[in-house]
Amino acid sequence: MTAGLLVVGTGLLGTSVGLALHGDTDVVLADRDPSALQTACRRGAGRAWDGGERVAHVLLAVPPAAVAGELVRLQRAGAGETYSHVCSVQAPVQAAAEAAGAEPASLCGSHPMAGKESSGPAAATAQLFVGRPWALCPSARTGAPALAAARSLAERCGAVPLELPAAEHDAAVALASHLPQVTASALAAVLLARSAGELRLAGPGLQDTSRIAASAPAMWVEVLSQNARAVAPLVRELADELERAAAALEAVDRGRLEDLLRRGNAGRALVPVKRGETDRDFAVVGVSVPDRPGQLAGVLVSAAEAGINVEDVRVEHLPGRPSGVIEVVVAADTRDAARTALAAAGWDVLA
Amino acid sequence: MTAGLLVVGTGLLGTSVGLALHGDTDVVLADRDPSALQTACRRGAGRAWDGGERVAHVLLAVPPAAVAGELVRLQRAGAGETYSHVCSVQAPVQAAAEAAGAEPASLCGSHPMAGKESSGPAAATAQLFVGRPWALCPSARTGAPALAAARSLAERCGAVPLELPAAEHDAAVALASHLPQVTASALAAVLLARSAGELRLAGPGLQDTSRIAASAPAMWVEVLSQNARAVAPLVRELADELERAAAALEAVDRGRLEDLLRRGNAGRALVPVKRGETDRDFAVVGVSVPDRPGQLAGVLVSAAEAGINVEDVRVEHLPGRPSGVIEVVVAADTRDAARTALAAAGWDVLA
Repeated sequence: MTAGLLVVGTGLLGTSVGLALHGDTDVVLADRDPSALQTACRRGAGRAWDGGERVAHVLLAVPPAAVAGELVRLQRAGAGETYSHVCSVQAPVQAAAEAAGAEPASLCGSHPMAGKESSGPAAATAQLFVGRPWALCPSARTGAPALAAARSLAERCGAVPLELPAAEHDAAVALASHLPQVTASALAAVLLARSAGELRLAGPGLQDTSRIAASAPAMWVEVLSQNARAVAPLVRELADELERAAAALEAVDRGRLEDLLRRGNAGRALVPVKRGETDRDFAVVGVSVPDRPGQLAGVLVSAAEAGINVEDVRVEHLPGRPSGVIEVVVAADTRDAARTALAAAGWDVLA
Repeated sequence: MTAGLLVVGTGLLGTSVGLALHGDTDVVLADRDPSALQTACRRGAGRAWDGGERVAHVLLAVPPAAVAGELVRLQRAGAGETYSHVCSVQAPVQAAAEAAGAEPASLCGSHPMAGKESSGPAAATAQLFVGRPWALCPSARTGAPALAAARSLAERCGAVPLELPAAEHDAAVALASHLPQVTASALAAVLLARSAGELRLAGPGLQDTSRIAASAPAMWVEVLSQNARAVAPLVRELADELERAAAALEAVDRGRLEDLLRRGNAGRALVPVKRGETDRDFAVVGVSVPDRPGQLAGVLVSAAEAGINVEDVRVEHLPGRPSGVIEVVVAADTRDAARTALAAAGWDVLA
């Protein structure tokens, strides 16, 4: 029997790919750690690779630093017809593979925009990639069969393939993911020297702006180190922007403060909040509720019964009080209908 | 008839106080703008002040720059026994009042932590202050009756009074509110020079970190200008932190990057996310759902039926796909029960 897919590395990503595909595709698995391999096999992600069997495609789901070595070893053994990897930074891995003497035509780098706070094969799930962007980053020398195989793998996992060059990918994640991480971490670090009393008046603004500062340091040290060249100038640009903001504050220069706030408005308007749509397409309806089980469900049932599609929900709990405000986000053109429907259902809709 | 409360300034805050109190208390209203006054009276926030009637308490809900002048004028006319205001920055207003010759014993500054994106008497609501912190900032010379009157006003509006000195208040909002605003605006401003393509891979991290960059510039220019002295050093501290992060990235200094990420973890753990509780008290349960009306309601009904109190909900829509992930936030010790209950109800609970 010839397997269709060899997954090397049965961590969170590799095992999740196996769970998504094994059955339709015959998946074989390999890992240096026998217990990780055993867990992945027991969970149904595939069967153990015998080390000699040849496959149509090899997915390298190992740490970025290990990709080039494994790739060259497997290519020389003739393990697969095409190869891909799932690194969160692309250009350095591509360069390392070429420097190590890998055959470039059969390789296509890729990066599923999926993950979770836990890791390892036990945390894997067949749905991990469903609906997520999956970047495909062929090099100039990637052959059509390798790109097609990487695309097919992403699609069969339920992801949405997005093709872009490695350098563009790395620039895009530097801006959309790595810069916000550094920003939130630095903001939260500034809080550290302060007393809890100074945070008593904290509200949703600080909560949202600092949320991802809770991310796992070990993973982020890897990501930031690998993409340091793309992230550093963005972080410096933000630092300069904040230096100028501090100077504007020191001078109480209202014109420069207003300019910063207006550019912030314009920049925020570029951020896709849902399938490419932005803030202006949505409206918020506030509802005051007692803080007890079922209130949130009740509000949303009322919306659903009225045929209102709720795009998002924010819950604001209020310090020291058994009540809260639920903010229901709807398409801007359904705002009035949503307000009317919720009020008619007896909810305390805020003006 | 002697009124209990005179509200000077029938904008969002003044009219909301009138709506919350008029009936139980006899509220009289004043505003330089006759149409704003008329709107507030018509909405039931009180009756128009005749300019001579004396009251127990005067609430100055006028722009910060107008407080000192109005206060001195009303004190000299003997309009009220005690006075308060609702400015979002306290120390400069207190200093301006003293410099203008105001009588300090009858004055207590205050600041309700409430507001909304719209303004004016038409946007006012009796529930605006319910459950919100309301800072009370007596000066060293504020008399007990003035403090008691300000406290009573806050309580009767349903707010939670928090007493702290003006300088402490200004430092607290600089950290918990004004610094995050400048941070989000500056981060969003960095996005402006980029192409939309570079934001295709944006996810919840950038969405949350940049959310408040959409705030209204005019109001924030006022707030930042008034509290510039407290905000400037925090913004400079963050800029320095980011300069060091940029240097660590340029040097690919993993130790310094890890230190930043770990301090970010510790700082984030200080942020109250609900009634003084922090991240570690909560757990997230992810559910994969088709993106159509009623899914969110259905998940929350299942949770409510199982007696699970949902503390918060996050909805993640996925680019280009008719599906999404609902993240249900529950108390950490109910995580397993919530997972079991949702799976038993037929939901696709993510591992």
